[in-house]
Amino acid sequence: MNIVVFGLGALGVAFATFLKEDGHKVYGITKEKYLPYLKDKILKVEGIWGEHEAKLDGIYSSVDDIKENIDLILLTVKSYDTEKAVKEIKKIVSENTYVLVAQNGYGNYEIVSKEIGKEHTLLARVIFGSKVIKPGHVKITVNADDVRIGDPSRTIPEEEIIKIACAIKHAGIPASYDKNVYKTLWDKILYNSALNPLGALLECSYGTLAENKETKQVMDNIIEEIFTVAKAHNIELNWNSPEEYKKHFYENLIPPTKDHFPSMYYDIKEGKKTEIDALNGAIVKLAKEKGIKVPVNETVVNLLKTKEKLSLMNKTVS
Amino acid sequence: MNIVVFGLGALGVAFATFLKEDGHKVYGITKEKYLPYLKDKILKVEGIWGEHEAKLDGIYSSVDDIKENIDLILLTVKSYDTEKAVKEIKKIVSENTYVLVAQNGYGNYEIVSKEIGKEHTLLARVIFGSKVIKPGHVKITVNADDVRIGDPSRTIPEEEIIKIACAIKHAGIPASYDKNVYKTLWDKILYNSALNPLGALLECSYGTLAENKETKQVMDNIIEEIFTVAKAHNIELNWNSPEEYKKHFYENLIPPTKDHFPSMYYDIKEGKKTEIDALNGAIVKLAKEKGIKVPVNETVVNLLKTKEKLSLMNKTVS
Repeated sequence: MNIVVFGLGALGVAFATFLKEDGHKVYGITKEKYLPYLKDKILKVEGIWGEHEAKLDGIYSSVDDIKENIDLILLTVKSYDTEKAVKEIKKIVSENTYVLVAQNGYGNYEIVSKEIGKEHTLLARVIFGSKVIKPGHVKITVNADDVRIGDPSRTIPEEEIIKIACAIKHAGIPASYDKNVYKTLWDKILYNSALNPLGALLECSYGTLAENKETKQVMDNIIEEIFTVAKAHNIELNWNSPEEYKKHFYENLIPPTKDHFPSMYYDIKEGKKTEIDALNGAIVKLAKEKGIKVPVNETVVNLLKTKEKLSLMNKTVS
Repeated sequence: MNIVVFGLGALGVAFATFLKEDGHKVYGITKEKYLPYLKDKILKVEGIWGEHEAKLDGIYSSVDDIKENIDLILLTVKSYDTEKAVKEIKKIVSENTYVLVAQNGYGNYEIVSKEIGKEHTLLARVIFGSKVIKPGHVKITVNADDVRIGDPSRTIPEEEIIKIACAIKHAGIPASYDKNVYKTLWDKILYNSALNPLGALLECSYGTLAENKETKQVMDNIIEEIFTVAKAHNIELNWNSPEEYKKHFYENLIPPTKDHFPSMYYDIKEGKKTEIDALNGAIVKLAKEKGIKVPVNETVVNLLKTKEKLSLMNKTVS
């Protein structure tokens, strides 16, 4: 396949390295400022999946340099860059191109499928942990589950989706076809929305948030508000009630990750932008569309955004 | 007068020093752990009201050592110690004793007047800034307004209240009689509830909180919820609507204090307990009594309490 990985961050480098290593033609798109570090086009992966290295067929800051017909585009930018990325991607989408949205949170699939067409857009729920060591070099730290790939709109033939999932799996990244990928993604939205902003605000681990009755109450409220919003939008979740999800959340999901700090915590520590707008921020937006009140999510978003701003300011000052 | 100052913290030391200097007989009650530092019974005040020093007639950890008839007891402990203090105080309240509740937040006057009787209980709204330099030695940093003294229950003769206000004023602490002291106290509750927990959570100044649209929205919500709760409890405020108060808050109250960080910020930094239960925590409790939802105050309380706990834990560890 001819593949473009759009966004060479923690996830993008992992996908690009494995896919290139497996014999595909792979181009990478990254921000202009990272190009000087990637002149040799060599990407590296280390960590739980072993050491890997691959030389891409091209690394550019724009798709204008790509002249070939592209079969698959992996969208791996942070969700606050999706709008911008999709305008670029559109230029290289032809009749047989699929765009695989491999990002966090709500809104990315919606933006891409609207702009590029449902018949070209696939969704992935990615849940392995990858950390940038330096530009083009990442470390895989943990894998919670397969990359789940599917088509929320059910317009793309299943065999086409399975072919893509198999290619990724064959390259060395555990992946599988998921008929209900949208529900699977929402599971991650629930999990991240409950934990990430509170862990970042209070600078503590998932375990601390769950053990402590005050933060547990806030997380319960966040989850309940998300269920209300999902229902109003006819978004199907994997759970019949907030109670059912909360039981799963506290009994099965928290214990194995109790020492983790959320990525949002590290983003803020490093003076980076967070993906709050694709998590609790998206819930607030969806609630407003239906005239629903989600005061707990809204308060958490407002506090997190302020902390993010103050941390960005400190970064600029120091 | 024979006076007992119950609680020799930032406010108590200031009151005790000035009243003793002015010729009253003054006893101080403090925690056992501070007694070794106060063996010479000498208290000191510095700052905007000049340098003052006075030797009290006794400093004890219990009222059992006080044998005289007491005219006035100033209650100056932190609000989380009020329940315990009032049990002690009760022992030395005789027919002609007044207890002046000079604390922060909601609930202190209510506890004291219930236990000791409305006919013995006066309320003060204290709004000068005092900082402990070391046990028995404080610095007055700022004075926003007179100490306002009154009787919310209107059972104590006005001339008695005026006598006490005059004694305090004569001693050198600006003070005056306030017929509507309860409304005046609620003004401070509004101000502190909007600013203190957010400044402590986000570690920023009042000005930053007011300039930033996200925190401004949270403060607006906190204020609106307090107005709803006050209305349900028939608590009269100085303002007809949240809008009227917010205008005053942002236009008149914030600008002169914009560089201030709340005391709660310093409490948490120093690993101390905060007075959140007498501010937003009291709002949550009052709301529950009437079956009203105050999700923004509740979320802020939960987050602040967690931060407080984590900071106390760090203090114990280090």
